[in-house]
Amino acid sequence: MTEAHDAVEVIVAKRDHGELSDGQIDWVVDAYTRGAVTDEQMSALAMAILLNGMNRREIARWTAAMIASGERMDFSGLSRPTADKHSTGGVGDKITLPLAPLVAACGVAVPQLSGRGLGHTGGTLDKLESIPGWRASLSNEEMLAQLESVGAVICAAGTGLAPADKKLYALRDVTGTVEAIPLIASSIMSKKIAEGTGSLVLDVKVGTGAFMKDLDRARELAETMVALGTDAGVRTVALLTDMSTPLGLTAGNAVEVRESVEVLAGGGPADVVELTLALAREMLAGAGREDVDPADVLASGAAMDSWRAMISAQGGDPDAPLPTAREQHVVVAPASGVLTRLDAMAVGLAAWRLGAGRAKLGDAVQAGAGVEWHARPGDEVAEGRPLLTLHTDEPDRFQRALASLDGGFDIAPAGTAYAATPLIHDRIR
Amino acid sequence: MTEAHDAVEVIVAKRDHGELSDGQIDWVVDAYTRGAVTDEQMSALAMAILLNGMNRREIARWTAAMIASGERMDFSGLSRPTADKHSTGGVGDKITLPLAPLVAACGVAVPQLSGRGLGHTGGTLDKLESIPGWRASLSNEEMLAQLESVGAVICAAGTGLAPADKKLYALRDVTGTVEAIPLIASSIMSKKIAEGTGSLVLDVKVGTGAFMKDLDRARELAETMVALGTDAGVRTVALLTDMSTPLGLTAGNAVEVRESVEVLAGGGPADVVELTLALAREMLAGAGREDVDPADVLASGAAMDSWRAMISAQGGDPDAPLPTAREQHVVVAPASGVLTRLDAMAVGLAAWRLGAGRAKLGDAVQAGAGVEWHARPGDEVAEGRPLLTLHTDEPDRFQRALASLDGGFDIAPAGTAYAATPLIHDRIR
Repeated sequence: MTEAHDAVEVIVAKRDHGELSDGQIDWVVDAYTRGAVTDEQMSALAMAILLNGMNRREIARWTAAMIASGERMDFSGLSRPTADKHSTGGVGDKITLPLAPLVAACGVAVPQLSGRGLGHTGGTLDKLESIPGWRASLSNEEMLAQLESVGAVICAAGTGLAPADKKLYALRDVTGTVEAIPLIASSIMSKKIAEGTGSLVLDVKVGTGAFMKDLDRARELAETMVALGTDAGVRTVALLTDMSTPLGLTAGNAVEVRESVEVLAGGGPADVVELTLALAREMLAGAGREDVDPADVLASGAAMDSWRAMISAQGGDPDAPLPTAREQHVVVAPASGVLTRLDAMAVGLAAWRLGAGRAKLGDAVQAGAGVEWHARPGDEVAEGRPLLTLHTDEPDRFQRALASLDGGFDIAPAGTAYAATPLIHDRIR
Repeated sequence: MTEAHDAVEVIVAKRDHGELSDGQIDWVVDAYTRGAVTDEQMSALAMAILLNGMNRREIARWTAAMIASGERMDFSGLSRPTADKHSTGGVGDKITLPLAPLVAACGVAVPQLSGRGLGHTGGTLDKLESIPGWRASLSNEEMLAQLESVGAVICAAGTGLAPADKKLYALRDVTGTVEAIPLIASSIMSKKIAEGTGSLVLDVKVGTGAFMKDLDRARELAETMVALGTDAGVRTVALLTDMSTPLGLTAGNAVEVRESVEVLAGGGPADVVELTLALAREMLAGAGREDVDPADVLASGAAMDSWRAMISAQGGDPDAPLPTAREQHVVVAPASGVLTRLDAMAVGLAAWRLGAGRAKLGDAVQAGAGVEWHARPGDEVAEGRPLLTLHTDEPDRFQRALASLDGGFDIAPAGTAYAATPLIHDRIR
């Protein structure tokens, strides 16, 4: 950082539709991390970036500056190749839970640094924390040791990795500047590149329950991230997958762990199995292990063994009963016919309002809260029979959860043709 | 304020090109003043307003909310009508100094709340503070008493007037969000309307040394402010005046007071006299005193009497020698011919770098620092003869001041036709 810059100069350059120089980007990210650029200056810059954009060079440099703000991990000493997966977040998206032990059972190490949920999409760590005894925080040494012994680790990102991103993410969350593709892409990729994985598969969600509501924006985000990963020497591929319908049959914490264990046991909802296997194949390809068929490994029970070892290694008891909520409320089908739509956002908001998610960082979540649905789009339903079951410890939450489900599903007359949305829209590399 | 809003909701509405509702505007301005909306949230909103704009209703409501954040003054008990003037800021713009006592001498009270300079345009209070003993801070009672006895007061705005604007202006200054027409217009007009003047003349500067570089943007700002004033019951008119060339023959603090006193004594540069009289006529018309010719009053010496009374009333000694800088540097004409251009921004930056202005709020300024020029565009100059004199107490400032003058003037061969830019471009009401 030899060049001296000024925060207003950098903000004005982007405000006036200019390109930021490498020196400006290096300076502003470093100065923000040090506190020399203030939160109010960075939020004005973030809004200017959101509205005026950044080109590929600027995004790459911004990402590199975020990586340079902290430490980098190194998995090159491991005896096996590494592969990681990142999902942009969806409702009922528990895929990481069966995926990480499955890929580990295929001989590829999975260093999965995850987050907690904020808003209507759940967090992987929140889900796993419903398992008695399981802990999310590991030191870098513990993480490396577990990767060597078990092959899979799902844990909280340490504070040393891309601290600029942590600070900036918290700021964007309260300033209406989350939805900027350059900032989303650099936030995700700075952590994944700093983490040191050899290959990466991105699951970019599209639809009502996703951050990206339309395919064009999702594709732009996917292409931006794939380019960033590739430029940084990480073999990166992205799948664009549907999030207009929630994944599986549950959204919440313990309810999603239960469903994940069903998948590892050879059962579980067809869409969760399909997406788990598709992402596993991409991760194996990225790690140079196309020779292994993850469907065979799942069927063999080896993935379940890896799951149990992974949970145990982090203090969890894989045999302990999972918590359940104290109160249930059943929503029955108002008519007989075919369920033609179950809206991911409506279900996500309901689960959030039941206590499965948090309104702000630091809030506690309920382990047992969430939503179960008893039919998926395309299934027949019968009037008066259970369609959804809501779970919470606090029954005064039912009313707002029910309000968010209002208009959240459609039932058409029996015999109506139903055209399923494909689960995987496209593959970007 | 009965409606409850959320800062992110308001930011996102403007970010996504929406119109803010009256309730959203009332809430966000009040909450920002109270500290419930943070600086980083307001700066993101300010950037969204700068890039996406506000319509006339939104600007009027924003202005009203800023006024409602503080007290309002009331001059209705005075024995004469009131008129005020506001300039958007220019280089060598000392017009307030002769204008306020001149209009007072014509029988109209002038409650001139002024500011300090920041950047390359000087501040009226900084200039007056070069007069030994003069003080800028008056209580509301002192101000009213002086308006009744002398008829003119130039003082610092009290902290009670539009506190939301003070807080927002300081924020915009450090976040690259100064240049938003809706925010500039509401900032200026909220203070002028809260101040309680009956009529207002706006001097909107256009050119290299002005905030507004082109006539279209200046016209947009003028029209926005005239509409705000008119809607609030203040008779408001705007002149669009040239600021490609600095006003008069001096830019600084004491040097500009000296020039102003020359104008009050019946002399002074022609452009300063012309603009002073033009603005005085507008102020008199706004106050219903078109019957008085300010040129006659200036010639009579009555304006000088008002000046002396105004300075004395605020503790200043109108007969005390004005401070001079310790060091001078003369720039000679590099060729003989006609001076065809003297750039306002170049001169303004030079004066600022010599110590006449400040880099950040709270910095001290030098009373004697500034720039004098010995020719105006259209004048003949002779090679080797003084063209500009630079004044400062700190000779190590000369080099940077000279650098800002580099390319700041043009000399054409003797006899070259020179077409003067009109001083007053247009009148908006």
